[in-house]
Amino acid sequence: MNTKIQGIIPPMVTPLMGEDIIDVEGTKRLIEHMIAGGVHALFLLGTTGEAQSLSYQCRYDFIELVTHQVAGRIPVLVGVTDTSIGESLKLAEKAKACGAVGVVAAAPYYFAPSQQELIEYYTALADQLCLPLYLYNMPSHVKVFLEAKTVVELSNHPNIVGLKDSSANMTYFQTLTYLLRNKPEFALYVGPEELTGECVLMGADGGVNGGANIFPELYVAQYNAAQQHDVNKVRELQQQIMAISTRIYSVGKYGSSYLKGVKCALSVLGICSDELAYPYRKFREEERNKIVEALKEITGK
Amino acid sequence: MNTKIQGIIPPMVTPLMGEDIIDVEGTKRLIEHMIAGGVHALFLLGTTGEAQSLSYQCRYDFIELVTHQVAGRIPVLVGVTDTSIGESLKLAEKAKACGAVGVVAAAPYYFAPSQQELIEYYTALADQLCLPLYLYNMPSHVKVFLEAKTVVELSNHPNIVGLKDSSANMTYFQTLTYLLRNKPEFALYVGPEELTGECVLMGADGGVNGGANIFPELYVAQYNAAQQHDVNKVRELQQQIMAISTRIYSVGKYGSSYLKGVKCALSVLGICSDELAYPYRKFREEERNKIVEALKEITGK
Amino acid sequence: MNTKIQGIIPPMVTPLMGEDIIDVEGTKRLIEHMIAGGVHALFLLGTTGEAQSLSYQCRYDFIELVTHQVAGRIPVLVGVTDTSIGESLKLAEKAKACGAVGVVAAAPYYFAPSQQELIEYYTALADQLCLPLYLYNMPSHVKVFLEAKTVVELSNHPNIVGLKDSSANMTYFQTLTYLLRNKPEFALYVGPEELTGECVLMGADGGVNGGANIFPELYVAQYNAAQQHDVNKVRELQQQIMAISTRIYSVGKYGSSYLKGVKCALSVLGICSDELAYPYRKFREEERNKIVEALKEITGK
Amino acid sequence: MNTKIQGIIPPMVTPLMGEDIIDVEGTKRLIEHMIAGGVHALFLLGTTGEAQSLSYQCRYDFIELVTHQVAGRIPVLVGVTDTSIGESLKLAEKAKACGAVGVVAAAPYYFAPSQQELIEYYTALADQLCLPLYLYNMPSHVKVFLEAKTVVELSNHPNIVGLKDSSANMTYFQTLTYLLRNKPEFALYVGPEELTGECVLMGADGGVNGGANIFPELYVAQYNAAQQHDVNKVRELQQQIMAISTRIYSVGKYGSSYLKGVKCALSVLGICSDELAYPYRKFREEERNKIVEALKEITGK
Repeated sequence: MNTKIQGIIPPMVTPLMGEDIIDVEGTKRLIEHMIAGGVHALFLLGTTGEAQSLSYQCRYDFIELVTHQVAGRIPVLVGVTDTSIGESLKLAEKAKACGAVGVVAAAPYYFAPSQQELIEYYTALADQLCLPLYLYNMPSHVKVFLEAKTVVELSNHPNIVGLKDSSANMTYFQTLTYLLRNKPEFALYVGPEELTGECVLMGADGGVNGGANIFPELYVAQYNAAQQHDVNKVRELQQQIMAISTRIYSVGKYGSSYLKGVKCALSVLGICSDELAYPYRKFREEERNKIVEALKEITGK
Repeated sequence: MNTKIQGIIPPMVTPLMGEDIIDVEGTKRLIEHMIAGGVHALFLLGTTGEAQSLSYQCRYDFIELVTHQVAGRIPVLVGVTDTSIGESLKLAEKAKACGAVGVVAAAPYYFAPSQQELIEYYTALADQLCLPLYLYNMPSHVKVFLEAKTVVELSNHPNIVGLKDSSANMTYFQTLTYLLRNKPEFALYVGPEELTGECVLMGADGGVNGGANIFPELYVAQYNAAQQHDVNKVRELQQQIMAISTRIYSVGKYGSSYLKGVKCALSVLGICSDELAYPYRKFREEERNKIVEALKEITGK
Repeated sequence: MNTKIQGIIPPMVTPLMGEDIIDVEGTKRLIEHMIAGGVHALFLLGTTGEAQSLSYQCRYDFIELVTHQVAGRIPVLVGVTDTSIGESLKLAEKAKACGAVGVVAAAPYYFAPSQQELIEYYTALADQLCLPLYLYNMPSHVKVFLEAKTVVELSNHPNIVGLKDSSANMTYFQTLTYLLRNKPEFALYVGPEELTGECVLMGADGGVNGGANIFPELYVAQYNAAQQHDVNKVRELQQQIMAISTRIYSVGKYGSSYLKGVKCALSVLGICSDELAYPYRKFREEERNKIVEALKEITGK
Repeated sequence: MNTKIQGIIPPMVTPLMGEDIIDVEGTKRLIEHMIAGGVHALFLLGTTGEAQSLSYQCRYDFIELVTHQVAGRIPVLVGVTDTSIGESLKLAEKAKACGAVGVVAAAPYYFAPSQQELIEYYTALADQLCLPLYLYNMPSHVKVFLEAKTVVELSNHPNIVGLKDSSANMTYFQTLTYLLRNKPEFALYVGPEELTGECVLMGADGGVNGGANIFPELYVAQYNAAQQHDVNKVRELQQQIMAISTRIYSVGKYGSSYLKGVKCALSVLGICSDELAYPYRKFREEERNKIVEALKEITGK
């Protein structure tokens, strides 16, 4: 039986020491840091996890490492987004063997499918998957939008159980919330952490928020406040969340400033390494210093 | 002295009988309908007002007609968005002469300016304008985004007093809300009516919501609930707002379904004509019937 | 009777002394320079002419000035691209009154029409126009592509006589050339001057090339070589055309580098002023010096 | 020593019997068909080869099968485009072991790199590759454009030997041709077959043209005519090439009409199966009938 996961589900970074070399100790520290911070589940090998930039062997190893360390304390979801349905299925088999409870898949991202092709693709994938599937709307990276009607149709598949939306388009999210109002078992998560407060106030199930790698308690606290309709508290915590967003994720003029910022902050805080996989590179000294300074102001230390 | 306008500011449709022919009686009925519904101000000649599709003479006549009918009962804002700064200034002079309290301008929409060019353009415009200027972020129509840093810089101009954001990108809106937190006199309005509830809960000043042409009380009621932090009421009214959004604005496969839907609904309700200016045409019979049916279900009549 | 214009048709810049102030003497010099260079026609108030940035009065005055100076020596086409069909018609009336032989219109550029709406719009426009209409495909500025099927359908209208394509997408241009192969009276011009050589080799009618403001003989010479299937000559002249393209049009990181470069080069050569209308500004000293240097190398003086 | 490949290099389709199941006999027939048609080299596992949709095992098997069948009669290039640099390198090792002479890589296509990141990525890739690298500009699928300056810089790497451009933007292609005019050993190929004629007339090295799977002689003949500056012959053959383009590649309203059309035509001609990998599906009966009819008219049989 499928129990809906609600709350803060960090899209975990993949700590690296070099190309396809996992920072094992950093990974363990990061997991303990997030669990101690009260997060409700973990999502690995997503966009924040740089999954597409890693070799498959590295991805398999990471699934093993994380699930072993988590050891069932919280549910683990695994990203299986791929352009090859066969590789998605193999990743899912590994995930299941290691005890993950679900998989997450954005659309194939080389060829841009039409909405009808998305329905056929996801249906074929869900039919063959050994674990429940969460859809993942990530138009900036995969070029196509999972339109609301497409999601509604796919929500009828018994093995499709939820959606993570990283579009930041809240008209879309509100439309989904409305159209799926009679399917309370279907989970709706929001990607951008700047929006978890308002989305949960309006009825969403939680946030898949990258910042929860760094400051898990903060996002959990805002989620709880929103659940309790404590608008003043939500807005108060939003100030900290926006300080992180505007100070940690916007250093340099990179499309990858968010990713570099999260990994750099984790490194500055001594949690894990800040290496990134190609095509991205970690911050240089000057940029790292800005993160150091921002962290001081944000944490007040 | 500038008093900040807060609440629901309908972007008024321009009722038409034909190309550049105003539906005068419909315009009067529509104004009375919205004022009776409690809206806090009016915004004419915006996107919903099809300003760009009208001849300048028609725009001047409409400014005169509307301001005369409103007769100072609520503040009137006038859209002066143009590709020619000279034409924007002339529209603003007309607006001032007729008693409007402010003007609204999206970026020039033929040549796509850089952020630096936007700053220079808006500064030159605000320097010469005879009325306070509201910025208007409308990337889908003008091709450029008014980046958060650009807005923050422009907010220092004494004659730039607020911004309407129609991007539906709430990460952007939250970023603006945060960066402008120490300028409470600068107004932040959200365009998509599906988002007014959550935006006002999070601190925004109001919504420039097209649906308030049709059902002004509904949007005013949700604005008030959000102001009072009544989350349950906001969510309850959101159901009606989403019913309108999904039933009235999504008939056919047009980019203009929203505009056609609003005008058609006003026509079905006997308020004004549903003619549109080129390049758009009003709904045909079959589509109109869907609006009739949707209105029955929504209004329960 | 309509005789097809073939050859080089410069999209004329609008020499300015300031906002909406025409550089009258510069305009006259520029016209004489281009006619002396052998161009086959003139196109004013297009994208290169910054039409959208000028007040309407300024546009009317410029039509009068140019047609008076040309005095029938070569055909004149006038851009009437507008978001308001009424304003397009008024511009066309002025053009006809001044002796222009045709008008050019890109799609309305605020609201993005569908292909069906484009057909309806252009049909309504052509029905009412007092001069033959040339379509203008300019997707980067108007957001929509005039699809090949749309052009083919519109080519059946008796008052639609040709198309200028500024997309730089040559698959599209080849498709049009093929689909319209049995309508030799329908003119096909290419916008980017880097492509006139190959397009005319493959059967196009000419180029609407901005560089012909500066070096009219060069583009005329390449057109003639291509007409005569002199591939070696086309490739030899292409070297000079590409030197201009890469040296004059790519100073700075502006979307408007082309426009700034053309006007700056004309100013350096003493032909007309380099002022631009908002939202663009002319090159600063440092950038102008690069143009000076590039012109020296290109002209060998 | 690297001898530049010139001429027609078909981007070979991957004949399939089902998901990740190669149509072995069809593959052999297709290879013999193309070699008999005079093509100058083969490019496998590109976009037309649906590489990204296949499992890695399937890709390895296909490299083996093709290179074994070709048996050195013509050079073979292998696509190694991937989001993981490690997987690209493994594909290249397999290609080298099987006798391929070069590899082709578009940019990583999940995360969109900046131009600087592209330079770093391609440099790292070329440094480690065991075979010469051809760049592949495919902005519609990978979201980023390999800007002309980026290509020029990368052309200095001793292991980067050419570029295939599938952008259809001929201003870009002309710019590359000009900027690389002093590096005659660097190969420039055009992707869209509608443009091979004009590109070779203007100096390009050849075409990577999907239609050469079906009608290899036609594209070889046009390439030869263009090499000999026989403009009339190029234009005459262009008529057939455009008939294929407009009749075979544009059935249905799919983004994948080209791919479906090529495979369907090969199936109708008895060369190989028309199965496609997810997210695409082969044409249904009605669409196939249109291909049958088009082939009859085109081949005159």
